[in-house]
Amino acid sequence: MSTVIVGGTVVTAEGTYRADVRVDSGVISAVGLDLAGPADTVIDAAGRHVLPGGIDVHTHLSMPSFGTETCDDFYTGHLAAAMGGTTSHVDFCIQPHGASLAAALDLWHAKAAERALIDYGFHVAVTDPRPEVIDEIATLPDLGVTSIKVFMAYRGTLQVDDAALFSCLERARDAGVLTLVHAENGDAIEHLMAGAIRRGETAPKYHALTRPPQLESEATGRAAAMAEVLGAPLYVVHVSCRGALDRVRDAQSRGAPVTAETCTHYLFFTADDLDRSGFEGAKFVCSPPLREVADQDALWAALRDGTLSVVSTDHCPFRYDTQKVLGEGNFTKIPNGVPGIEERMMVLHHAGVNGGRITLQQFVSLTATAPARRFGLGGVKGSVAVGSDADLVLWDLAREHTITAATNHGAMDYSLYEGMRVRGMPVMTLRRGEVIVDNGRLVAAPGSGQFMRRRTGG
Amino acid sequence: MSTVIVGGTVVTAEGTYRADVRVDSGVISAVGLDLAGPADTVIDAAGRHVLPGGIDVHTHLSMPSFGTETCDDFYTGHLAAAMGGTTSHVDFCIQPHGASLAAALDLWHAKAAERALIDYGFHVAVTDPRPEVIDEIATLPDLGVTSIKVFMAYRGTLQVDDAALFSCLERARDAGVLTLVHAENGDAIEHLMAGAIRRGETAPKYHALTRPPQLESEATGRAAAMAEVLGAPLYVVHVSCRGALDRVRDAQSRGAPVTAETCTHYLFFTADDLDRSGFEGAKFVCSPPLREVADQDALWAALRDGTLSVVSTDHCPFRYDTQKVLGEGNFTKIPNGVPGIEERMMVLHHAGVNGGRITLQQFVSLTATAPARRFGLGGVKGSVAVGSDADLVLWDLAREHTITAATNHGAMDYSLYEGMRVRGMPVMTLRRGEVIVDNGRLVAAPGSGQFMRRRTGG
Amino acid sequence: MSTVIVGGTVVTAEGTYRADVRVDSGVISAVGLDLAGPADTVIDAAGRHVLPGGIDVHTHLSMPSFGTETCDDFYTGHLAAAMGGTTSHVDFCIQPHGASLAAALDLWHAKAAERALIDYGFHVAVTDPRPEVIDEIATLPDLGVTSIKVFMAYRGTLQVDDAALFSCLERARDAGVLTLVHAENGDAIEHLMAGAIRRGETAPKYHALTRPPQLESEATGRAAAMAEVLGAPLYVVHVSCRGALDRVRDAQSRGAPVTAETCTHYLFFTADDLDRSGFEGAKFVCSPPLREVADQDALWAALRDGTLSVVSTDHCPFRYDTQKVLGEGNFTKIPNGVPGIEERMMVLHHAGVNGGRITLQQFVSLTATAPARRFGLGGVKGSVAVGSDADLVLWDLAREHTITAATNHGAMDYSLYEGMRVRGMPVMTLRRGEVIVDNGRLVAAPGSGQFMRRRTGG
Amino acid sequence: MSTVIVGGTVVTAEGTYRADVRVDSGVISAVGLDLAGPADTVIDAAGRHVLPGGIDVHTHLSMPSFGTETCDDFYTGHLAAAMGGTTSHVDFCIQPHGASLAAALDLWHAKAAERALIDYGFHVAVTDPRPEVIDEIATLPDLGVTSIKVFMAYRGTLQVDDAALFSCLERARDAGVLTLVHAENGDAIEHLMAGAIRRGETAPKYHALTRPPQLESEATGRAAAMAEVLGAPLYVVHVSCRGALDRVRDAQSRGAPVTAETCTHYLFFTADDLDRSGFEGAKFVCSPPLREVADQDALWAALRDGTLSVVSTDHCPFRYDTQKVLGEGNFTKIPNGVPGIEERMMVLHHAGVNGGRITLQQFVSLTATAPARRFGLGGVKGSVAVGSDADLVLWDLAREHTITAATNHGAMDYSLYEGMRVRGMPVMTLRRGEVIVDNGRLVAAPGSGQFMRRRTGG
Repeated sequence: MSTVIVGGTVVTAEGTYRADVRVDSGVISAVGLDLAGPADTVIDAAGRHVLPGGIDVHTHLSMPSFGTETCDDFYTGHLAAAMGGTTSHVDFCIQPHGASLAAALDLWHAKAAERALIDYGFHVAVTDPRPEVIDEIATLPDLGVTSIKVFMAYRGTLQVDDAALFSCLERARDAGVLTLVHAENGDAIEHLMAGAIRRGETAPKYHALTRPPQLESEATGRAAAMAEVLGAPLYVVHVSCRGALDRVRDAQSRGAPVTAETCTHYLFFTADDLDRSGFEGAKFVCSPPLREVADQDALWAALRDGTLSVVSTDHCPFRYDTQKVLGEGNFTKIPNGVPGIEERMMVLHHAGVNGGRITLQQFVSLTATAPARRFGLGGVKGSVAVGSDADLVLWDLAREHTITAATNHGAMDYSLYEGMRVRGMPVMTLRRGEVIVDNGRLVAAPGSGQFMRRRTGG
Repeated sequence: MSTVIVGGTVVTAEGTYRADVRVDSGVISAVGLDLAGPADTVIDAAGRHVLPGGIDVHTHLSMPSFGTETCDDFYTGHLAAAMGGTTSHVDFCIQPHGASLAAALDLWHAKAAERALIDYGFHVAVTDPRPEVIDEIATLPDLGVTSIKVFMAYRGTLQVDDAALFSCLERARDAGVLTLVHAENGDAIEHLMAGAIRRGETAPKYHALTRPPQLESEATGRAAAMAEVLGAPLYVVHVSCRGALDRVRDAQSRGAPVTAETCTHYLFFTADDLDRSGFEGAKFVCSPPLREVADQDALWAALRDGTLSVVSTDHCPFRYDTQKVLGEGNFTKIPNGVPGIEERMMVLHHAGVNGGRITLQQFVSLTATAPARRFGLGGVKGSVAVGSDADLVLWDLAREHTITAATNHGAMDYSLYEGMRVRGMPVMTLRRGEVIVDNGRLVAAPGSGQFMRRRTGG
Repeated sequence: MSTVIVGGTVVTAEGTYRADVRVDSGVISAVGLDLAGPADTVIDAAGRHVLPGGIDVHTHLSMPSFGTETCDDFYTGHLAAAMGGTTSHVDFCIQPHGASLAAALDLWHAKAAERALIDYGFHVAVTDPRPEVIDEIATLPDLGVTSIKVFMAYRGTLQVDDAALFSCLERARDAGVLTLVHAENGDAIEHLMAGAIRRGETAPKYHALTRPPQLESEATGRAAAMAEVLGAPLYVVHVSCRGALDRVRDAQSRGAPVTAETCTHYLFFTADDLDRSGFEGAKFVCSPPLREVADQDALWAALRDGTLSVVSTDHCPFRYDTQKVLGEGNFTKIPNGVPGIEERMMVLHHAGVNGGRITLQQFVSLTATAPARRFGLGGVKGSVAVGSDADLVLWDLAREHTITAATNHGAMDYSLYEGMRVRGMPVMTLRRGEVIVDNGRLVAAPGSGQFMRRRTGG
Repeated sequence: MSTVIVGGTVVTAEGTYRADVRVDSGVISAVGLDLAGPADTVIDAAGRHVLPGGIDVHTHLSMPSFGTETCDDFYTGHLAAAMGGTTSHVDFCIQPHGASLAAALDLWHAKAAERALIDYGFHVAVTDPRPEVIDEIATLPDLGVTSIKVFMAYRGTLQVDDAALFSCLERARDAGVLTLVHAENGDAIEHLMAGAIRRGETAPKYHALTRPPQLESEATGRAAAMAEVLGAPLYVVHVSCRGALDRVRDAQSRGAPVTAETCTHYLFFTADDLDRSGFEGAKFVCSPPLREVADQDALWAALRDGTLSVVSTDHCPFRYDTQKVLGEGNFTKIPNGVPGIEERMMVLHHAGVNGGRITLQQFVSLTATAPARRFGLGGVKGSVAVGSDADLVLWDLAREHTITAATNHGAMDYSLYEGMRVRGMPVMTLRRGEVIVDNGRLVAAPGSGQFMRRRTGG
């Protein structure tokens, strides 16, 4: 089975150049001018740019949370992803209390197997860090899982204490596993939330006010300090504010093995959006919360200077009509999370590349190449390179599109970006050489997405 | 009862000038030239400098710890203090688990009442932060106690979690009470200590290696972040390293109500001292541990620029012959703490003032004026000022002295400063106008020291 | 000649306490309760606070500048100062090109001698740093002048290059002389100003836009680096922005002998005031320019944490009607400078102490005690202490006052603080024990102010 | 003319993978598995890694300096470069005083044309910034020159003042030209050097002592501030110390368009090397000077975190026997500069990649890909990518080599790395598809290297 994509312009994290791309058995076999030879399929990419398919390393599909479950499953979420040019993702498998990590992975495998349209991997969130669970970390690489996550927030459900975080970092280090951390001080936040509710401060905006940036900054510094002491690789998820960036940057400047991401929405929205009229603010409730314009500026600068190497979505979709409303009258009950898996590449390309904030190379690196390398998929995903999976997206730099929930493809009933006009969008998506979306039409079967076994040492 | 000290040179945090000092009923009633009028006692201070008596706000007398008890009680500790020019102190009353704060204070009052030679106050260390204990913080000012302490280290004994720390900060703020914090990440340290012991790393030097500076820095940043969020006054005790100073300085630069002290020994010794031959290193085991020369430089700079406003001792004396030896073969069992209440003013004056690192004004501020103001004793202690208690020390700038355990006055069998030659020392100590040490001779009775009720809002 | 001030409350940088103050021959001879003995004059200070008279170490009286001359001379400026509670100042003697420093001082002595109401000293601004002028620095202490100033801005008039700055710092260090620096990059600013004028950007607001904070920050860092390399004491005048504070703080944290002041107006106004309607913005033109609210917050924090130790005025008064108007149609011709010598203590007390941003002790330190110590007047000025000059101000904490040019006392026709209502103001001013202002009435004769010979080593 | 390199492993800044590389007319036409088709030449790369040829963007060949001239010309320097795996460089064309920039370029073209073995470009150093010279910057892109350099040091010869630097930055920005800066405070350094000589401090070690790191840090901050104010791209050459890194990092974190390089020798040597016995230290005299081990650590961390994006050599070779000796008895006369063009890739690979400090991808990026993109050669040089020049080096990861001047290939009589054993070295070098070095044998003709016209906007 061979395919040649002819006439396009290849874009990598390194450069942009005219070249055809040949694919054999789902893998890129050559990149070159006028690639000769017979092929089963020839795709005309004239006028298109050929990018590595997006990789979203922070998603929550079919995840139980806040007494409900995220509304996108591994079919609807994948459909939205593929439509937006994303060809693989790494989802968070949440260890149920009392369960082993392996059992948790079984649960998540079951969610994905029959539905998957794009390729997927799992991080395991260690929420019940009994000694035998800590021991189990060493077995994860054999299961194709080379990253764990630890929550410093959500006391009473997901949060673990510093002893557990430290143990996890050490064991993960020894196993070549990367530790991800949600860095907010959950103890202090619980206290502030309780106080707000006691005072009758129940509107969505209090979500941001009870999670001040200092509590994200300190937790980031705390995790980074532990990583530095242990020499353990750390990846800070969803960095939202300047103070946390300062802590990441300091750690990196001392040579500590710390990397970090931000998520799309922190680049576009602020705490003011939580105060939209009526209960609309609930649509923007996520943790850490949206911050200020000065933080957005700092995040863009950090994407440019490399302090942040990845833009993910933290796609954690809850419908407004039936789920966000659970928190009416009490912001602490609003399911935490916002959608973005379909919009990520379009809005980042538009505001970032068209807006002159990042280069096309940085766009590719942030959405595909860097996450692949960081998460044990280097050489397999994330690059238009010989030997890599032919996960590709044909991008039309000129085509314009207005984002709206009405034409989005997942299970959500709203989009944060409602009405935003973007220029530049995917017109074809290939996964391992197979076209899965062709000009807005799904042409892949449920279950055709595969589990990605990831390497250690990311 | 009136006294006039004539012919001396008064030293305050503001300046140095020739003046007599008149005392009536234990209180300074006038400072002036040729103070006329009758007096019961006239003290000739010609050639002497008249300083406010030292205030040591960080001591541990008769404190149960590590299965033993600090060897200085409120008599021997006070004797050493008075000999060194210190006329009052604030000791740590440690709440026993299960007890109320009031009950804990009763215990400490009982330790002090019959023995005291100098005036004393108490901080209460909240070690068992049940809700009713947190509630009790509001009652402390009525007991004359306006500062509490919270430990972020010593997991399993003194340490509390962030929820408790946050609650304490908030309640203390509301009550006008200052929160002190021992800032080290106890969870991570326990883990590192257990690992060291498992590997057979049992010598005293591993004490420092298992308490790396990053873990003090992050904890300092964590407590400062909480203080900033709450607008709650915070005082970081025994800052030992550059990283922690950075966190204090950052907090101050943002206007957060954070102040800090260092302790004498951090200015003089390093982690290398923990590796002295035999088991000698145990004499230098304290927490946070001694650091590096670069940290000493940073501490001196911070004393000059005001980032640190107090030098205390953390006098926590354990004899070498019977107590430090408990940790032979296992550094985690070495009682943590070093002595210094007698040497503080002499060594700081010598290395600081004679050494050109601080001015005489800064010396007075660091040892007396600033601690008085910070701990609710402004206008009562810490200054040669009208209306203040006549806690005074006559200092001979020229007299030399060699420090040695043999001639020290407490219960200890060693001095960190053994053999150190200093120039400048106290030759007379007055407490509330009464001479308690005259040229090295104690002339006060046990029980003559009084409990200091301190004001809120320090 | 003796005076006793009875019944007042003394305020020093250390504390506040009830005490009478006795003055003999212009010098404080005693501070005490019920100071007995005969006195020529008894002043009733009941209900008043007795503060050290203000010291303003940054003023420009009768200074030629921008083709005109500051409108307050040593009479009108002193009158305004005394009315505002300021009893001494250090003015900038500007070396004319071609002249020696001694000749420059002669010029300034002539301006002051017959007019002075309060005591005065001089800094010499080295503007023509020929080798023989650099050599002359060593002779300044014999003339009672122990501080020089160097301008890094005002290319073509006052500015000197880095070679001269470095030489001045070194020579001043050797002579025990303090170097003051105006830290802005004059070369870059000239370029930006020329560009603005070329583009027709002539309104006052372009004054701020052509002097961006980065150019102050870098110059501050540059001077601090030189001071650190040489171990030469440096005092950065009129710090206006967060970036410059960062550089001062960094230098201090490394132990470099760097101190700094801000000026009153930076705490109250922003660049927006330069855009007031009509040509009103010209009233707010000074250099460095007014900044943003975030900078004000940073300055207040720096006053609290000690990064800034002095608040001066940079009183550099140009009338609006005849002088500021010189720059209509061309902001580069607006004389640079704003008034403040009369308002400084009242507005700082009101916004600072009443506003809860600084304590009464900090107020006294910032306005009197610290400038005295820093500028070679410790023990002579700036403190209510035995042996110091009886420069005192009786302050009524409760009296309210509305600031307006109409009732101000200098030669100016506007006040920055027009219409501002303050609580707390001076009701009597004494200079060397002599009442010079009594409840808003001048009772001193021109020429009664004296030149202050200052000590080295400040 | 076609070539296929078969059986090798391609290394790019993105990844490492097995692939053949086809070259047509000097340009890479395909990268793929089993590249079929006829070819004029087939090169067997089995067991080799195929890297983009090194690009050294900081060299000084045949440059007049210190009354002599660097000893490598465009033949010997190129020979050394090619032997070390470097296939192109950008040299500094130094404007003679009085000359135009175009005339200066003519001089440098003449030096290179007949001798060149590898491709070359020029930066123009603006040393005589008359207005017409500043105007001339806009014409440089038409000459294929898109970067200029400005010296903040070397007063009296190369140094320009801040006015000129600011003008250059602005004009260069407008022309799409990148400004490079040598950031040291030349005024202060001249002063310190003169003082040292006056005191008889003439040995090489005083070179470092008279160029303290603070003076590099401040100059770096100064240039960065100007770049930020103007929005002008800035590239800081030869960053040597932690303080300068802090300034670069701060600028980047604020979004300023500032990038930076370090040079090989700063990673390997310290100021101690200047104190080698006899006059050996002269071999290590370069500016900025070698620093401390802590600075080396900071530089490595900055290579990893992206603060530094390039490692160049500042190859500025002066023979020891006839040139360095000019400074015997007076370190200020030692020609400033050290060699490294041959060793750069080998020593960086060995210490960096083998030493675990950087990845193979980072090695390629630092030595080839990033410099190409930054200096207007993206898509042309620096990458194993379709459409790029086939500047390639076959690297043998296993081959060991001992560096010694005796077997080096340039005109130098010493190597800094004398005796250093490295593992990993080039075994074949291709320039535009043509083999120029084959296993240590030169097979290219003088004059075959070409001038590289570079694009703007780098």
